[in-house]
Formats: sequence, structure tokens, C-alpha cells
Amino acid sequence: MTTLARAEQNLILRCSDPLNAETPPDKLIASFLTPQADFYIRSHGPTPELADDHPVTLDGFIDHPRSYTVAELQAAFQSRTVVATMQCAGNRRAHLQGVGKTSGDPWDVGAIGNAEWTGVALRDVLAAAGIQDGALYVGTIGADDVDVDGETAPFGASIPIAKALEPDVLIAWAMNGKPLAPEHGAPLRLVVPGYAGVRSAKWLTRIEVRDCPSDAPIQAKDYKLFPSSVTKDEADWDQGLTIEEMPLNASICSPVDGAHVDAGACGIAGYAVAFGRAVSRVDVSVNGGTDWEQAELTVNPDAPWSWTQWRVTAGLSPGLHVLVVRAVDGAGQMQPERPEAIWNFAGYLSTAWHRITVTAR
Amino acid sequence: MTTLARAEQNLILRCSDPLNAETPPDKLIASFLTPQADFYIRSHGPTPELADDHPVTLDGFIDHPRSYTVAELQAAFQSRTVVATMQCAGNRRAHLQGVGKTSGDPWDVGAIGNAEWTGVALRDVLAAAGIQDGALYVGTIGADDVDVDGETAPFGASIPIAKALEPDVLIAWAMNGKPLAPEHGAPLRLVVPGYAGVRSAKWLTRIEVRDCPSDAPIQAKDYKLFPSSVTKDEADWDQGLTIEEMPLNASICSPVDGAHVDAGACGIAGYAVAFGRAVSRVDVSVNGGTDWEQAELTVNPDAPWSWTQWRVTAGLSPGLHVLVVRAVDGAGQMQPERPEAIWNFAGYLSTAWHRITVTAR
Repeated sequence: MTTLARAEQNLILRCSDPLNAETPPDKLIASFLTPQADFYIRSHGPTPELADDHPVTLDGFIDHPRSYTVAELQAAFQSRTVVATMQCAGNRRAHLQGVGKTSGDPWDVGAIGNAEWTGVALRDVLAAAGIQDGALYVGTIGADDVDVDGETAPFGASIPIAKALEPDVLIAWAMNGKPLAPEHGAPLRLVVPGYAGVRSAKWLTRIEVRDCPSDAPIQAKDYKLFPSSVTKDEADWDQGLTIEEMPLNASICSPVDGAHVDAGACGIAGYAVAFGRAVSRVDVSVNGGTDWEQAELTVNPDAPWSWTQWRVTAGLSPGLHVLVVRAVDGAGQMQPERPEAIWNFAGYLSTAWHRITVTAR
Repeated sequence: MTTLARAEQNLILRCSDPLNAETPPDKLIASFLTPQADFYIRSHGPTPELADDHPVTLDGFIDHPRSYTVAELQAAFQSRTVVATMQCAGNRRAHLQGVGKTSGDPWDVGAIGNAEWTGVALRDVLAAAGIQDGALYVGTIGADDVDVDGETAPFGASIPIAKALEPDVLIAWAMNGKPLAPEHGAPLRLVVPGYAGVRSAKWLTRIEVRDCPSDAPIQAKDYKLFPSSVTKDEADWDQGLTIEEMPLNASICSPVDGAHVDAGACGIAGYAVAFGRAVSRVDVSVNGGTDWEQAELTVNPDAPWSWTQWRVTAGLSPGLHVLVVRAVDGAGQMQPERPEAIWNFAGYLSTAWHRITVTAR
């Protein structure tokens, strides 16, 4: 079965070229770890089909440039497993599009998933290579060719060296104990827990230790956050916030928007994420935000890189109901209430309280 | 001059017993470091007047209990200086009180200040004492007696051991290069950067390494965050969020609410804080939130424990204007828009967009 056929079978297709598809909401809460076949796919170009021994080259501000295949990484370094949620910076973008048009695919709540990633710590590989003075960023280049506003270039991104040296940043070859599928970056991808998915480069071909951020279009002219007042045409790309650490967010996954449910006791469930902090509270309203009930956090609210799943049971009388969820993080910080306040032309970081409408009868 | 007389001269008095007084807004933005005499004072009981050699005792889950005076700490450990903003968990509480009554003093924007603290790293002192297995919290007891809902007990608080072992948590004897004044905790206080001021215990008498949080009323039955729906009478104290790390916040310090200003170009200035993250953007509106302008961040937006100061110049036509400020942190997370959403019976973590009204003429 082709990658596209698999995506059409298991996921909600948002774009076929490049292949972008999200996880159906019921599958997001069916388990703590999202199966690889159900995991959202975000591509920026055609999916490369690389050999299992496609090597990644390591160079730049290091003493000993060299390349590694998966087998060579496994032989040279201690394997490491990290459970981490990955999400697109545009997850929930559709919820901004009621405010105004944005660029990008209209993701609902499913451009996110949680997996157990296995690989080696990037910092172990960098340490063996001998990091030189002046190393400030770690850049990555993928085997995928990407078109950004008419400019075609290999996928390139970078992360600050301090993040790269955290023990949980991996060069990974497996998800949930199985080798990476082609659409998830086989044979090797970066996994940068807590950061927007775009920094976790897939189909790794080169890792370059740098004295400045990647100048590839993906890093330099995309995935930046601007205020609502800035249009794409007038954006000064050097002034935008480079999207790295992802903000507090929460989504309702069941029921779904527009659903018809039985009147009476209704189970409501979803996920919440707050990287680097705990999710301390999830509030649910079934009357549009007038009254709130505290949801039960069902898994791992303190896991540093994983989502929390939550649920609540509410009584719904016959008729229309606006269901709302909002989360509070460990610093007592709450999500913004309205999408209007955070709208931006590229539709990134859509974190307003998630509202859906259901009919009970 | 008495402490109370000094507070009345330099600060805005909110309560004389216990002594609670905040910094006038113009002094908050007059310098990056707040002078000690202008620094807000938050007491929970009468101000102890302790001798310069009042010792702090160290005990609990350690191998070598002992006590230290300031001179003994200075002789035994490397001194360390940290610039950090301290703020009361109730800063800006007055802005929640338009929604509904709360307990606590009606702080405006001035229960906050930024200082250079000098002392020794708590972790160095703990390491010398030999931390035992089972150590999960570091508790502190002050020389001040505190009344919490009719129960009088010595001031007691605690922080998780992981926070206590961060290098910037200090046992401090000086602010801005001068010995601590009595009202700021002389001779020794804890400084816990990024946490609510209540965890930075003053007038230290005892540091106890513990296997559970402090059971003193301040820790167990106060300084916890509850949802808006919970009243004080029905609060289950074990269910509230223990306020530790402080959330993103921003305040307008000049002009002040109700001010009359000259029509034309008007300078607007204030502070923003986002502990553990950068303040990435501060937006200012002079028409109630319809249009926004990006403020200039004038100092240290990336300093991990310090506030950022900001300013913008806006043209004001004659008439009433609603000025609003809101900040965005390094993860793209924005402050909540309305105080209604975050109101809580104790008036903690008041972080809604700060709104003031001025008249230009």
C-alpha cells in the first residue's frame, strides 16, 4: 500500500501533495501512545524513499566530521527512549480561520500525537564529534525538497545549541518500538521534545553545527509568529518570533463538532499539552463558558514531554450545547479566551479555548 | 525612622498590621534594579527585629545538622549574586476585584520589584550538610508569627528539592549590595527566583529538609489557586494548585489609571515578566484593544529571572482613552484577556490584560 493510500485509510487527508493528514479525534484519545499508522503526517515536499542505511553526515563547528548509518549509531552510542508529544505549529489552525483567512492547511485538533521514540541522544553524538567554540545552533538538512514561496531548497531547520544538548533530544530511528515509516522520516529523524514539529527534521541527511540559525527558507522565512496586525506581504522575517517551544493548549476530541449525542450523561474527553510545565487543571463547560467543571486528568499530568488526556461526564438536556475546554498550566497560566486576540496570517499557535457545538436529543 | 514610617514615606501603604506596602508605579520603571527603600513589603505578621548574628539552623533529612550565622555562611561558602524579580502572588489583585470580592490586600501593579541578591547557593549548603535519601522538599521557618484564619504559627513554607538545588536559589543577606533591611528579612532570607514571593521566606530561623511539603498554614492552607467556581468555605486545600512558578504578566506603570495627560504624543511604559521563558512581545493598545502597537523592550528581555521593561509612544487625541497592555512569552503564549476567566476567591495570579483609562486634553 502506498503512503498516500495508508494516509487516506487511517487519517483525515488535508493535502495530498505534499502529504498532510491528521489523526481522527477518536484515535487521539484511544490510547496514551498514538500508533504509528494513526500518527499525523506533515510533509513539506514529496516523501523521500531512502535506503535503510542512508547515512547522516555530521559537520560544521566540530573537530571530527563523519557520517553515521542507523547501524553505526546503534553500535557507537547508548540507545535512548523518550516518550514525547509531537505537534505541528499549525495544529488547530482551522479555529483561527473563522477570524480571518490564513495560509496553510486547515488542521483541526489532530496535527498532534504522542509516541515513544528510540534513538541516540544528539548530545552524545555531538560530544563524540568534539564541539568547537562558536557553536551556537545545530542545523539539520533533510532529503526532502521544499518549496517556500516559489523558492525550492532542501528542508533545513535549526535549534539552539542549549536545546540540542538536552538529554532528551534524539536522532531517532524508531517510533513505539518499530522502525520509522517512510512518512515519519525513515531511516533517521530528529526528535526535539517540546518544540514545534518542524524542528524535528525528518529524512536526515546532514547535521551541521553552526554559529547562526539555518538560512534555509523553512527556518528563515516560515514558522515565525507575528502579531495580528502584520500581513504576510509586509512581514519583516527577522522580527517574528521563531516558533520553538510550544504553548499551552487543549482540545475536545469526543464528541466532535456538530455531533448528535443522546441527552443525559455525556462523556467528554480530549487532550492537553504544556511542555516544560505540568497541566495543572482542565476546565470544561457545556454552556458556552458560563459554568465550568474540572476534568479528570487520566494520564501522566507531570510527564515533561507528553500530553495529558482528560475526561468529564456532564448532563446534557435536549437541545444545542456549546462545549468549551480550557487548560491551566503549572504556573497558573491559562489559555487565551478568543482566537481574535492571537490570529496571525500563517495561522500558527492556535490556542484559544476550544469550542464545539453538539445537539443532544 | 521606623519601618512603618519609611514605608509610608516611600511606598503606597495597603495595610499597617501586618505591614504591606507597594512600590509607586513611577518608581517601578525608574530603574532596572528597584532600590531597597522603594521595594514592596509583604509581611504576614509583625516585623521581627533580629540580631545581625541571628543563626539559621539546618536539619531534617541531612547527615550533619548545624546552624550558620551570616559570617559563618560567608566564611564557609562561595558568595553568589543573582538578579531576580520578586513578586507577591497577589500582585494586581485589585484588577480581579471588579469581578468579585476576594480576600487579601488590594494590590495594584506594585507588589513586585527587581533586585540583585547576594548570598550563598542553598544547594552548596545542602551539599555540605549531606542530603539523605527521602529528601523531597526544603522547608523554611521564619522568626515571624503568622495568623492564618485564627491559627497562629511561625511562618512556614517549602519548595520542591529540584528547585532548591537550582544554582540560583540563595540564602541571601544583601539586596543591591546592601545588607537586608529588617522589613526585607534581615539578617537572612531565602530567594527563590521565578517563584511567588511567599516561598522566599524572610527572617530565616530554620531550614528543614523534608519528605513532604511544609504543614505550616501558609503552605498548606494558603497560596493555592482554585477555579472561579470554588468558594473559600468549600475549598479542599489539597486540591488547589500550590502557587510556585509565576505566570506571564504585564503592567502599565505610566501613565496611571485616571491620569490627565497632554493630547499628542504620549509615552506609555511598564514592565513584563515571564519566568523561565523570554518575554517575546509586548502589545499596547490606546483604543481598548481594537488596534495594537508593539512596544520596545528596553532591558534584558532574555534575563531568566528579571522583568523586562517596555515603552511605546502613542498619539492621543483629546478625550478618554482606554490603554491596554498584554504580553506574549517565548512559547507564543499570551496573557488571558479578561479577569472574569481567572478570578479566584483569594485573588491570586491576576494576569488579565492590564487596562487603564486616561484623559487627554
